[in-house]
Amino acid sequence: MKNIGVIGYSGNTESTPIREIAELCLKLGQELGKRYTVFTGGRNGVMELVSKGVKSVGGFCVGILPWEGEDANEFNDLVVKTGLDFQMRSFVLVKSVDAVVSIGGEIGTALEILASYANGKPVILLRGTGGWTDRIATVLIDGKYLDNRKLSEVYQAWSVDEVIDILDSILR
Amino acid sequence: MKNIGVIGYSGNTESTPIREIAELCLKLGQELGKRYTVFTGGRNGVMELVSKGVKSVGGFCVGILPWEGEDANEFNDLVVKTGLDFQMRSFVLVKSVDAVVSIGGEIGTALEILASYANGKPVILLRGTGGWTDRIATVLIDGKYLDNRKLSEVYQAWSVDEVIDILDSILR
Amino acid sequence: MKNIGVIGYSGNTESTPIREIAELCLKLGQELGKRYTVFTGGRNGVMELVSKGVKSVGGFCVGILPWEGEDANEFNDLVVKTGLDFQMRSFVLVKSVDAVVSIGGEIGTALEILASYANGKPVILLRGTGGWTDRIATVLIDGKYLDNRKLSEVYQAWSVDEVIDILDSILR
Amino acid sequence: MKNIGVIGYSGNTESTPIREIAELCLKLGQELGKRYTVFTGGRNGVMELVSKGVKSVGGFCVGILPWEGEDANEFNDLVVKTGLDFQMRSFVLVKSVDAVVSIGGEIGTALEILASYANGKPVILLRGTGGWTDRIATVLIDGKYLDNRKLSEVYQAWSVDEVIDILDSILR
Repeated sequence: MKNIGVIGYSGNTESTPIREIAELCLKLGQELGKRYTVFTGGRNGVMELVSKGVKSVGGFCVGILPWEGEDANEFNDLVVKTGLDFQMRSFVLVKSVDAVVSIGGEIGTALEILASYANGKPVILLRGTGGWTDRIATVLIDGKYLDNRKLSEVYQAWSVDEVIDILDSILR
Repeated sequence: MKNIGVIGYSGNTESTPIREIAELCLKLGQELGKRYTVFTGGRNGVMELVSKGVKSVGGFCVGILPWEGEDANEFNDLVVKTGLDFQMRSFVLVKSVDAVVSIGGEIGTALEILASYANGKPVILLRGTGGWTDRIATVLIDGKYLDNRKLSEVYQAWSVDEVIDILDSILR
Repeated sequence: MKNIGVIGYSGNTESTPIREIAELCLKLGQELGKRYTVFTGGRNGVMELVSKGVKSVGGFCVGILPWEGEDANEFNDLVVKTGLDFQMRSFVLVKSVDAVVSIGGEIGTALEILASYANGKPVILLRGTGGWTDRIATVLIDGKYLDNRKLSEVYQAWSVDEVIDILDSILR
Repeated sequence: MKNIGVIGYSGNTESTPIREIAELCLKLGQELGKRYTVFTGGRNGVMELVSKGVKSVGGFCVGILPWEGEDANEFNDLVVKTGLDFQMRSFVLVKSVDAVVSIGGEIGTALEILASYANGKPVILLRGTGGWTDRIATVLIDGKYLDNRKLSEVYQAWSVDEVIDILDSILR
């Protein structure tokens, strides 16, 4: 089974801007959970909502945690405690997956988008979710690269269904 | 389900000193696989044999790999590619488990025994398997510690059954 | 003495796009070398040219290398071999400095710009040098932030003199 | 100039067992500082005393710190903040030096002795200083190796003068 990483806003799931995309995260988790093993950073925010969706359909969630992992959400089937800081641990996450889906996100998500590309992993931006997921779309080279080395492609989806279609085509 | 790490000799499973302990590794994998999620370094040698045992009873194996993980054995259910070197990746392994079982082993295993203790994880030495598993037993403080801070305990087992009994008692 | 990190294009210093900014890199190295300890990634490209400039005025260069460091340039006074991959080692670099100057750059530089900001370090973009140094300037929030958390400020300079003026003011 | 790492007890320099070896640490720092760049973990205990000795003769000290480095001692000329935990940062230290001198020490020192050997770096045990420096001497293979791969040699010195003599001979 292929591994898909999901990255995005951390933070309280009841607060803006996460609560506005809560349903979308749950649905993404459900659709991914039926098809793939889902990797997240294992904590709160988008990570927690997507993992909740994955579990609601009987899928399998892996949380790649920084430090010792005390703040893992309850939906992880397996937790890896890296002992690394928030950003360095993101490299373990992106190296371990076949593709990455990005939702909203602040600087940590931006680093993960770039880290995915740098490690040759396709990134799918779930557009309309704000933050760096939408911002990075404005600086793509030739509409799909993050530098001139063309290490991987960045895709843009405007719905969960479109995310699944893109994953189907690139991971075939 | 609790996570158990298994550490030990890397190398060709057909060569000394690994082939002499192959049956033992398979049996350990079988008994652990019935009860726990088993983490290894994901590569050859003891890691491969134990994972093969785990899979033969329908258990679940996680391989925590160095670098990008091209040399993962075929028995891993899930592979985490840390991007770290052989030794630094061992810290991700020991931090992610509840206890560690050690079999034989050269310097990498020695580092993992010490890393387990330093991270507060109980270590069970499967005695009679040679290498650092037997060597470290000769320098224990009060028969069970690796320094004066008493961060965790080091146990000694002389059979797979004894390993399981010790795990049962300390992880209850 | 304060520590300044310089990031930018890696690659052959005789080839485009590095040879076009070679003089600028040398001058930046000279001006930084008179005032600060200069940290780079220790390898070729912008790192090498800036370090050459630093040494030409008797300054002090530290190279923070990935892996074991076989490819260090000849201008490092001190080399730190992190054993980490290219990108993870960049975090050791940005954490160790008081501010970062960015020149051109592909994905590795983009990651370093974001890592600097994420670690609360001011970043000065030497504009007109191409690559991610110019590209990131187009997505700044309020003209100076890389996300809504305002962890540090991103400054823009159009000359080496302006870089020095900004450093003088923010590190006073 | 060659780089020498010094490892050993952390902790309060006024308390047992560090105060009993304080003069020895200062003298070691003085003799190393005249000849080599000295790397330590940058914190308290043996690291602080050796660095104080280095500075008293005008030498150069590098501190390789875990996390963000808030607890660096005052004798470091240069501080590298790795963002890594205590033990993972030790690998950056040993990879960056040409040889390592060990004094006393608990589990962190034991890990550094083994990490040095695993990375092919000679280790000199300053015998009579207790802890793992003396303990590891009891399990050497052929009196000088830490496993059968013979990755580097472990030397034993009973005085600072003997440490310097050994370094002179192996780093010639």
